[in-house]
Amino acid sequence: MDFCDAMEKLPEKENNGLFGKNLLRTKDMSDEDIKAIAAGACALKAMRDNNVSPKIFDSGIAVSMFSKKDNGMELAFASGCDLLGLTIIDMDRKLGNSNINETAGMASYMADALGICESDFIEKSSRYIKRIADSVEEAQKSGVIAQKPCVINLGSDEDSPVQTIADLQYMAERFGGIENLKGKKIAITWAYSPNGTRSLAVPQGILSLVTRFGMDVVLASPEGMDLMPGTYEEAEKNSEISGGKFTRTDSMEEAFADVEIVVPINWAPFTFLEKRTELSAANLGTYIDLLEHELRENNKEFINWEVTEELMEKTKDGKALLLHDIPADVTDITCIRGEMTAQVYNANLENLLKEAGIRPYVIAAMIILAKSEDPKAAFETIAKRATKRYF
Amino acid sequence: MDFCDAMEKLPEKENNGLFGKNLLRTKDMSDEDIKAIAAGACALKAMRDNNVSPKIFDSGIAVSMFSKKDNGMELAFASGCDLLGLTIIDMDRKLGNSNINETAGMASYMADALGICESDFIEKSSRYIKRIADSVEEAQKSGVIAQKPCVINLGSDEDSPVQTIADLQYMAERFGGIENLKGKKIAITWAYSPNGTRSLAVPQGILSLVTRFGMDVVLASPEGMDLMPGTYEEAEKNSEISGGKFTRTDSMEEAFADVEIVVPINWAPFTFLEKRTELSAANLGTYIDLLEHELRENNKEFINWEVTEELMEKTKDGKALLLHDIPADVTDITCIRGEMTAQVYNANLENLLKEAGIRPYVIAAMIILAKSEDPKAAFETIAKRATKRYF
Amino acid sequence: MDFCDAMEKLPEKENNGLFGKNLLRTKDMSDEDIKAIAAGACALKAMRDNNVSPKIFDSGIAVSMFSKKDNGMELAFASGCDLLGLTIIDMDRKLGNSNINETAGMASYMADALGICESDFIEKSSRYIKRIADSVEEAQKSGVIAQKPCVINLGSDEDSPVQTIADLQYMAERFGGIENLKGKKIAITWAYSPNGTRSLAVPQGILSLVTRFGMDVVLASPEGMDLMPGTYEEAEKNSEISGGKFTRTDSMEEAFADVEIVVPINWAPFTFLEKRTELSAANLGTYIDLLEHELRENNKEFINWEVTEELMEKTKDGKALLLHDIPADVTDITCIRGEMTAQVYNANLENLLKEAGIRPYVIAAMIILAKSEDPKAAFETIAKRATKRYF
Repeated sequence: MDFCDAMEKLPEKENNGLFGKNLLRTKDMSDEDIKAIAAGACALKAMRDNNVSPKIFDSGIAVSMFSKKDNGMELAFASGCDLLGLTIIDMDRKLGNSNINETAGMASYMADALGICESDFIEKSSRYIKRIADSVEEAQKSGVIAQKPCVINLGSDEDSPVQTIADLQYMAERFGGIENLKGKKIAITWAYSPNGTRSLAVPQGILSLVTRFGMDVVLASPEGMDLMPGTYEEAEKNSEISGGKFTRTDSMEEAFADVEIVVPINWAPFTFLEKRTELSAANLGTYIDLLEHELRENNKEFINWEVTEELMEKTKDGKALLLHDIPADVTDITCIRGEMTAQVYNANLENLLKEAGIRPYVIAAMIILAKSEDPKAAFETIAKRATKRYF
Repeated sequence: MDFCDAMEKLPEKENNGLFGKNLLRTKDMSDEDIKAIAAGACALKAMRDNNVSPKIFDSGIAVSMFSKKDNGMELAFASGCDLLGLTIIDMDRKLGNSNINETAGMASYMADALGICESDFIEKSSRYIKRIADSVEEAQKSGVIAQKPCVINLGSDEDSPVQTIADLQYMAERFGGIENLKGKKIAITWAYSPNGTRSLAVPQGILSLVTRFGMDVVLASPEGMDLMPGTYEEAEKNSEISGGKFTRTDSMEEAFADVEIVVPINWAPFTFLEKRTELSAANLGTYIDLLEHELRENNKEFINWEVTEELMEKTKDGKALLLHDIPADVTDITCIRGEMTAQVYNANLENLLKEAGIRPYVIAAMIILAKSEDPKAAFETIAKRATKRYF
Repeated sequence: MDFCDAMEKLPEKENNGLFGKNLLRTKDMSDEDIKAIAAGACALKAMRDNNVSPKIFDSGIAVSMFSKKDNGMELAFASGCDLLGLTIIDMDRKLGNSNINETAGMASYMADALGICESDFIEKSSRYIKRIADSVEEAQKSGVIAQKPCVINLGSDEDSPVQTIADLQYMAERFGGIENLKGKKIAITWAYSPNGTRSLAVPQGILSLVTRFGMDVVLASPEGMDLMPGTYEEAEKNSEISGGKFTRTDSMEEAFADVEIVVPINWAPFTFLEKRTELSAANLGTYIDLLEHELRENNKEFINWEVTEELMEKTKDGKALLLHDIPADVTDITCIRGEMTAQVYNANLENLLKEAGIRPYVIAAMIILAKSEDPKAAFETIAKRATKRYF
C-alpha cells in the first residue's frame, strides 16, 4: 500500500482531537480520533516497509513502566518509539509502593511519551494511570516540565487501546477499510486457559470498540464469567448508535455460526478480580494464591471452550479470520489444553503475527497525533524528507 | 532564561579544570569547576526548554552501574546522556563479586561516560569507584581503549556531586546567582525515616559544598547521629576560607530559626555504617539484619525530627525554600511517620521536582566539560547548529 | 592502522557469502566469509579509533536474548550495534517456556539484528537458535516482516563465533595477518575453575576455527574431560585440508612446550552436560544440583591445571601470547584457585582486554556483511561520509 493513501485519511489541523491529549481508553476518543490512529499506523507501516525512516525526533525519551513482564507489548512500545527517534528507558515502578507525583515528575523531565502497563487491580489500575497522567499535566502547568509527554495506556484493568486499535486496523486491511466492517459478523469468545487470571482489558476493549463501528457482534462466555458491570450496556448502546448488533450466548458453538471473524480469549471473571484486588489491598498474599487456585479448579469445568478445526468449520465458508492478542495459550504447544488447538493456531499464525505487528505503528501514530497540532504536516515532513535506510 | 547568559559563565579553553578528569567528589573540584558545571547545566536546560536539541554525539555509549535500584538517578543519568546523543547501557555489576580491571575495561571499550552508584560500604564504596576510574585510565595508557570515558559518581558512601551541584544551581536560580548565596542562612538537618539506613553521601556532600560558597550553615542532628570523621572540620575550614559560618545544634527547632533554606534528610550514623561494612565483609548477613533492626528501634527515639508547618513558620518570613534529594519519606504519603508532613511536602512539591529536574543537565554538563578542551566552543557549536526538535 | 587496508580485504559484491545469511557457527561459513568478518571488524575498529563514526543505520533495532547474564557479551552486542546506529532492546526470553514462532515474530518486526545466547543444553540450545532463525525466515516469506534481521549466535552449546573470530583477528594483528598463523604452534588447554560448569562453545569453536587456518594445534585436557563427539575428528580433517597439525595430550606441561599461543579455558565434560540436559528436561532440579556438586568435587583432582609463570616459561622464548574469553577465573583475584595465577593474568591483562575489545567490531562487521549485497560499497559509504565524532 502506498503510504500516501493512508495519509489522506489523517485529520486536518483543525480536526485533530488528540492533540495534547493522553491515550488511555478508546471510549475517550471520537470515532475520528480512532480512524486517525489507524490511518497513521497504516502510513507509518507502509513507509517502513518501503525502507523509509519516519524518524522525526532528533532526540528525546520515551519512558515505559510495566508492573509485570509483557515481552510483546514491551517490544511494541520500544520499536514504535525507536521508529520515531525516541530512546526508551524502562522504569521499574509498581502501583502502590511509590509516590505518584514524584514518579510522574521524574519520568516526565525529558520524556515525549510515557507508556504504562498496569492491569492487575480492578479500578485501581486505571485510576493509577489516570493519576500519573494528571500529575504530568500538573507538572507542566507549574513549569516543572517544559513539554508534556503523552501518556499511553499499554494495558490496564479495563482497556488496551494499542491492542484493540491494531486489531481494528488489521480487520480493516483484510476487509478493505474500516467502513467495510459494518455488518460483518464477529464472535468474541471466552476460551479456556490453564493460567486463567488474565485481565479484562482486551475482551472489554475490543467489545467496546467494534460495537462502535457497526459490526454484528456476538459475545460468548460460560455463566458467571462476567466482564465489568456496565460493559454489556455500553456495547448495546454503541451498537444502537452505530447501526450494528450485539448479542450474547453461553455457547462457543452458537457464537461461531456463520461469523467472519473470531476472537477467542481467556479472561478472569470480574468477581474474582474484584476479590483479588481487595485481598491485595489487605496484603493477604496467601489468600490470593488460594483464590487463584480455586479459579483454576473452577475453570476446568469449561475445558471444552477450545477453538478446534470443527468449530472453525462452522464459521462463514469455514474460513473466519482468527484474532488474538498473542501470546496465546495453545494446546500441545504452550500447554496441555489451551484456548485453541495447535492446528487452528498454526493455520492462523501468519495472521496473528501480522495483527500483532501493527502495534508498534499504532503507538508511533498515537505519539505523532498527540504531539502534532497539524499531524498531516508532520507526516508530510517525514514523507518529503524520505530518508532511505541504507539497507 | 536565555542560554547565552549561562554560556558566558563557561570557562575559557585555558581554564577548564575538568578536561580529561573524572567527576568523583566536589572536594576534588575547584570553585570554578563547580560553577562551570552549574553554568553548563543551566545553558543546557534553557536550550532544551526552548526545544533546541543539544545532541553533540553522533553515536556513543554511556554505561551505568548501579549497585541497587535508584529510579531517580537512573532516569537522570539516562536522560542527561540521551540529551547529548549517547546510548545508555546498564551494566549489572556489583562491588565485590567482580574483577575490577575486567569490569572497567569491558565498560570502557566504546563508552564516553561511565556512571557509578555504589554507596553501601563506608570507604570501600568510594575506593571501588576510584579503582574503576584508575583502571580506565590504565586501559587508555596501554592502548586498550582509544578514548577515555569520564567516570561520574552517581552516589557513593561520601559524596553525591550530581545531586549537590543540582541543589546549588537550584538555589542559585532562586536567589539570583551563586554569588548571592553568600551569607544566606541554610539549615541541614537530620530527619526521621522508618527506613533509616540511607548513606551519608548527600548530607556530607551538601555540607561540604555550601560551606565553600560562604553560606551561613547550621547542621542539626540528634546526639550520636554523626557524619564521617573529619566532615565537621572540613566544613569549618571551608567556612573560614569562604567567609561563611558553620554551627551545629541538636535541635531541629533551633536550626530552623530565621533560615532561608532547609534541607531535611535522613541518614544512618557513621558508626552503624562502619559496623555494617565490617559485617558485610565477613558475610554475616543475619547480623546485618539485626544491626539494621536495632538502628530502626533506636531511631524511634527521634520520631519528632519531622518537618511540620509549625517548624516551617519559624523560618525567615515563614517561607524557607525546602530542598530534598527526592524520593522523600513523607508522613501519610509513603509512610506513617517520615521526614516531613504531607502538608509541608505538598506545599514544596513543585520546588522539589524542579530541583531534581536539574540533575540530568548537571550530568550532561559534566560530560561536555570532561570531554572538551574548549567547552565554550562545544556549546557554541550546539547553539549555532540550533537543531530545533520537530515537536 | 589505516582502515583502508582492511577494507581492501572485504569481498567483492559477487563474493559475499554472508549476504542474507545468519551467523550461527563458523563451520557454516567459508574461509573467505571468516576473513571478511575479521577484515570488517578491523576496518570498523580503525575508524572508531580515529573517531570516525560508522553509523550506517538511521534508525532500527537490535534485539538481544540472553538465557543468563553475560555482561561481557551483552556489552559487546550493545556496543557493536550502537556503533552502527541500532537501538538495543533486550528481550527476556528463555528456551523452553516460550512459543518459538511468536518469539521470533515479535522480535523481528523492526529488527535488523537478533543476538541470541543460549548455551546450557547440549544440542537443544543450538537447535533452539536454529529454530528461531528458521521462524524468522518463515516470517519474511509469509510477509509478516518486510526485512529479515540476521540472527547472530552470541554463545551456544557448540560454538561462539563472535568470540572465536575476535580471537582469530587478534592473533592476526599480533602475528601480521591471518596468513601468518599458518604453522604457528597453539595450545588449547583445559584449566581448573571452582565453578566448573562452563559450556563447550569456546573450546570447541576455537579448536574448529584454528585448525582451518593451518595452525599447529595441541589440545590438552584431563582424561574424561571430553568435548562433543565428532569434534576431534573434525579438527583432524580441518588440519589435513589446511596443511596444519592437530595433536592431543593429557598434560598441560607437555602442551605448553614451545608454543607461541596458549588458550587456557575451563569447560564441563560432554557427559556431564548431556546428563544435565536430560535432568533439566525432566525438571529434576535437585539432581542437577547434586550432579554439579559431584562435578566440582571430581574437578578438584585437576586443581593443578593452572597456568603459572613456570609453565609460561616453557613456551617459545617464555613469551607465548595468552588468550581467554574473559571473564577469567583467576587465583587470588576472583577465587582461591583458578585457571591461572594472578601474576600470569596481570602480565597478560592488556592483551586480554584488547582481545575482548574486538568482539563489538566483529558483531558490527557481521551485521554489515549479512545486510549488504555489496559490503565494500557499504564501507566506502561510511568512509566517504567520514562523520567525525565531535569529541
